[in-house]
Amino acid sequence: MPANHQLRLQARPKGLCAPGDFKLVESPAPELQDGQALAKVKYLSIDPTMRVWMAVDSYLPAVGIGDVMRAGGLAEVIESRHAQFKKGDKIVGLTGLQEYVVVEAQSKMPFQKVPSIPFLSDTAFLGVLGATGSVAGQIGKIHGCRVVGIAGTDEKCKWLTDELGFDAAINYKHPDWKEKLAAATPNGIDIDYENVGGEIMEAVLNRMNLHGRVALCGLISAYTNETTGPANLGLIIVKRLKVEGFLILDYASRFTEAAMELGKWKMMGKLKDRQTIVEGLEKAPEAINMLFTGGNTGKLIVKV
Amino acid sequence: MPANHQLRLQARPKGLCAPGDFKLVESPAPELQDGQALAKVKYLSIDPTMRVWMAVDSYLPAVGIGDVMRAGGLAEVIESRHAQFKKGDKIVGLTGLQEYVVVEAQSKMPFQKVPSIPFLSDTAFLGVLGATGSVAGQIGKIHGCRVVGIAGTDEKCKWLTDELGFDAAINYKHPDWKEKLAAATPNGIDIDYENVGGEIMEAVLNRMNLHGRVALCGLISAYTNETTGPANLGLIIVKRLKVEGFLILDYASRFTEAAMELGKWKMMGKLKDRQTIVEGLEKAPEAINMLFTGGNTGKLIVKV
Repeated sequence: MPANHQLRLQARPKGLCAPGDFKLVESPAPELQDGQALAKVKYLSIDPTMRVWMAVDSYLPAVGIGDVMRAGGLAEVIESRHAQFKKGDKIVGLTGLQEYVVVEAQSKMPFQKVPSIPFLSDTAFLGVLGATGSVAGQIGKIHGCRVVGIAGTDEKCKWLTDELGFDAAINYKHPDWKEKLAAATPNGIDIDYENVGGEIMEAVLNRMNLHGRVALCGLISAYTNETTGPANLGLIIVKRLKVEGFLILDYASRFTEAAMELGKWKMMGKLKDRQTIVEGLEKAPEAINMLFTGGNTGKLIVKV
Repeated sequence: MPANHQLRLQARPKGLCAPGDFKLVESPAPELQDGQALAKVKYLSIDPTMRVWMAVDSYLPAVGIGDVMRAGGLAEVIESRHAQFKKGDKIVGLTGLQEYVVVEAQSKMPFQKVPSIPFLSDTAFLGVLGATGSVAGQIGKIHGCRVVGIAGTDEKCKWLTDELGFDAAINYKHPDWKEKLAAATPNGIDIDYENVGGEIMEAVLNRMNLHGRVALCGLISAYTNETTGPANLGLIIVKRLKVEGFLILDYASRFTEAAMELGKWKMMGKLKDRQTIVEGLEKAPEAINMLFTGGNTGKLIVKV
């Protein structure tokens, strides 16, 4: 095994990631133990939650200073003494920002084998599973909902409506976007798939219908600065809303099931994905920042 | 029918109710139409939501300037051409801040007849049905929960533990109350019956367990000043909480069922209530303010 390049956390970021927050180090190859497998990381999934992991203890402990930065990724097994995986298997799990990962025999967050689905590329697998907003909206369309997206550029909005089939898409950087949101939701909003929080969630809450539901996936606007929540939480009472938080890791045991369903829709052309692929492990910190500056469209991936 | 004294809204309050916000007027007796009943208001239920009704459109439209102030109350039918009620019936519903109320044949929010339960006084009926925090906690005890209350005076806390059987009660005006809350909830919090919002809800969210539930009944801290919600809403995701808003009016059709159950518990000594009774319709505005300054213990009632 060649040397393993790793991005280790050096400092907790203030706002966006700064150059000194990570250090690229070369670590020696580990000795493989019974029960372990060694896998080469091919693609890294760059997700907003990484910014949380860098900063504070949350649903997972904060990444320790000096530790390899935590990240999800797709890797290929190159050597195995692991009962579940054999050489050549493609697996997904928390690989970390590094070139090689040792897969342990026992883990609280085990790797999952990527199911072999014809016509689906590896990155499509990460894309469809990870780009939450655009995929949630398309699933809404599959289930017959009227779907309205909110994004930060006209180009992204055009992609949502023209390619993904959303009924409307609102650019929240336009000064009159709240009026446009109201016009696009003439019968109000029944389901909010919420990833942003702050002022955007506030505007959505204003449009929610009685007994509406908010699936709280993320509050990305609060991750890089200390904003408070929406000021109109009283609407949860007034409109008798149900707000529920969830984390994908809770559903790890159902990843294969989800992949089969999503893969099927993708093959049928009902589900499209788009990726922004950044080349090079060393670019991962810049890629994390893109999530907060609106630099990516669809799923953001680093090719190692 | 004698003249009807009414408190009419004159101005929308800023912060607490001010002397000029209401005007006491004497209105002529209405002519009773077929299908209507006339009832004499005996007790008025003074609730935080009234402050919302005075200010803004919410789940009900704001009370119009010049209109009789909306309020729930208990009244006795003195004359009836109404199919459902007869003279002498005691009824509850939105009586308004006035001495006499005309009960319409058709109403979106109809009056309910108070069930006749031995040993239960009329005010006990309002008390047990309306003093949400202390009743919710006692129902928790009946169902075998460990119950911790939060209140604003040592005397109220003593009442919660010594008389109502709460396992602990925390005075949020003590400087170290958050540490005391942590000590009183060594295994975290599974259910938050939330009526306050702001800093208190923030402290409670910090103690919530994974997959905990928040029954959002009120956000009283936000009603008189423009505070934002808790800054730690990300915990809804991290802890996968379920937050649901509700309003008592949604359950109007089950009031009698609830009254029977609560009355039964009260007769069995499992449920205790305490009332602060303010005498005189004209004192209602001061009574509303007591809710926000901590002046009442248990259910706040105005005796007309």
